[in-house]
Amino acid sequence: MTTFGERLFSAFTSAGHLCVGIDPHPYLLDRWGLADSAEGVREFGLRVVDAAGGRAGIVKPQVAFFERHGSAGFAALEKVLGAARASGLVVIADVKRGDLGTSVEAYGQAWLTPGSPLEADAMTVSAYQGLGSLDEPWRLALASGKGLFVLAATSNPESYETQTAIVGRGIHAGLTVAASIVDGVVRSNAVATPSLLGSLGVVLGATVDLADFGIVPGTLAATPILAPGFGHQGAQLSDIRELYGAAAGNVLVSSSRGILDAGPEGIATAIATQVRDLAEVYAA
Amino acid sequence: MTTFGERLFSAFTSAGHLCVGIDPHPYLLDRWGLADSAEGVREFGLRVVDAAGGRAGIVKPQVAFFERHGSAGFAALEKVLGAARASGLVVIADVKRGDLGTSVEAYGQAWLTPGSPLEADAMTVSAYQGLGSLDEPWRLALASGKGLFVLAATSNPESYETQTAIVGRGIHAGLTVAASIVDGVVRSNAVATPSLLGSLGVVLGATVDLADFGIVPGTLAATPILAPGFGHQGAQLSDIRELYGAAAGNVLVSSSRGILDAGPEGIATAIATQVRDLAEVYAA
Repeated sequence: MTTFGERLFSAFTSAGHLCVGIDPHPYLLDRWGLADSAEGVREFGLRVVDAAGGRAGIVKPQVAFFERHGSAGFAALEKVLGAARASGLVVIADVKRGDLGTSVEAYGQAWLTPGSPLEADAMTVSAYQGLGSLDEPWRLALASGKGLFVLAATSNPESYETQTAIVGRGIHAGLTVAASIVDGVVRSNAVATPSLLGSLGVVLGATVDLADFGIVPGTLAATPILAPGFGHQGAQLSDIRELYGAAAGNVLVSSSRGILDAGPEGIATAIATQVRDLAEVYAA
Repeated sequence: MTTFGERLFSAFTSAGHLCVGIDPHPYLLDRWGLADSAEGVREFGLRVVDAAGGRAGIVKPQVAFFERHGSAGFAALEKVLGAARASGLVVIADVKRGDLGTSVEAYGQAWLTPGSPLEADAMTVSAYQGLGSLDEPWRLALASGKGLFVLAATSNPESYETQTAIVGRGIHAGLTVAASIVDGVVRSNAVATPSLLGSLGVVLGATVDLADFGIVPGTLAATPILAPGFGHQGAQLSDIRELYGAAAGNVLVSSSRGILDAGPEGIATAIATQVRDLAEVYAA
């Protein structure tokens, strides 16, 4: 079985590091001439997938914008996920789910079970209830060639209070909460897939000063990094090596509005341009 | 407009403190003679609502078990939410959503907008990205008489690392992460609904030693407390006053398997029994 890390590595090699966000904001639906409805988000998502296929390697639907439309929105999302996977894109469901025990196991089953209606290649998760609360989805991911991305250091200033708080006891005593999550992820990857790119990733906002969180990018040399914040939120593509150092090769450069603002006529060109710009950064 | 806190207070007065979990675990579906399918979770949910109506005041569907079945599972959940609200129950969608900006706003719209397909009376949320990241759903809740319950101190041991970490800067410097969330919630309630039961609640596991987190129950005198962990997980109903002190009157005593294990024939009796036992605890 191919692991998620291997699939991701292959996508980096063949199509580069761009991860195209599928974020059907109401304002974007309006700009795209689509209704703010389940049909609108389906059409939006399918057009983004169509433009990304053959140009980029990775897409990331923001599930909140589908969930707004209830079960009909989820039916639309199923179509979008299916189309994206059928066209060979690596699909990350941006759901930020988290819970305990059988509940978090059920979230893992929803998004990571081969053949399930909402099947994706990976999902984003939240570890407010501890990294250990995610053991069950992590086990599911490993068993079926899927991946997880755990929120670690995010770009919004109000996250600072929680994510820089200092752990008091246990093996991570003295680390920030964000660094303790990064350390746990790195260790899990080292056990599961030594010497390969791991299948358990972290979310590190591109506008974040990692030193503030005590995160050393060099430790992430075998860990995928999902990095929102390029373009619209202010991080520059040319800063990738400076931001992530030895881990730059593992970064999924997530871009949503910076691409989606181009509208249905301009999106294919916007994707191709960002893929080319990124390839130049990585070739330099 | 009636606030969520007022509705909750009214439910406490008329029907007591029991919050009946609607958790269609696969093992429970099997025990209930139902298929592990969208139809199964719909039937399960509708039967629990039917048994709870007129006996208890509050229900809490665990959304992960519906999400397992994709859009069809959400269509089932819509039926369950609608039936519960139609029978006058206070409905808390246990979704533990969290995100930033327009994404978390979209989650709030999904669950708290009057007339939306997934409309509930309140939702559970996660503040890994900071309590401030939840401002937009909180604004939506206040505007439409809805509520939020923010995860603070949860019952699983692996949550300890994050939730007892010490905040380093700002107004909550020196507090644990869990206590900083509790403090932020208490302050928000004091501003939004002074002198009434607030509409912004916290989740505090009933098996948690609040002192370990630096949480003083007395500060929660106007804040709803959603407390899972009674019954199956080991907390005793008779301990409520000892656990929550002056805030005991605000506790939603969440019970899932302890009721659902009774099966379709026994559930109405199980609910009535727990309501009566709780009334005795509160009368003592």
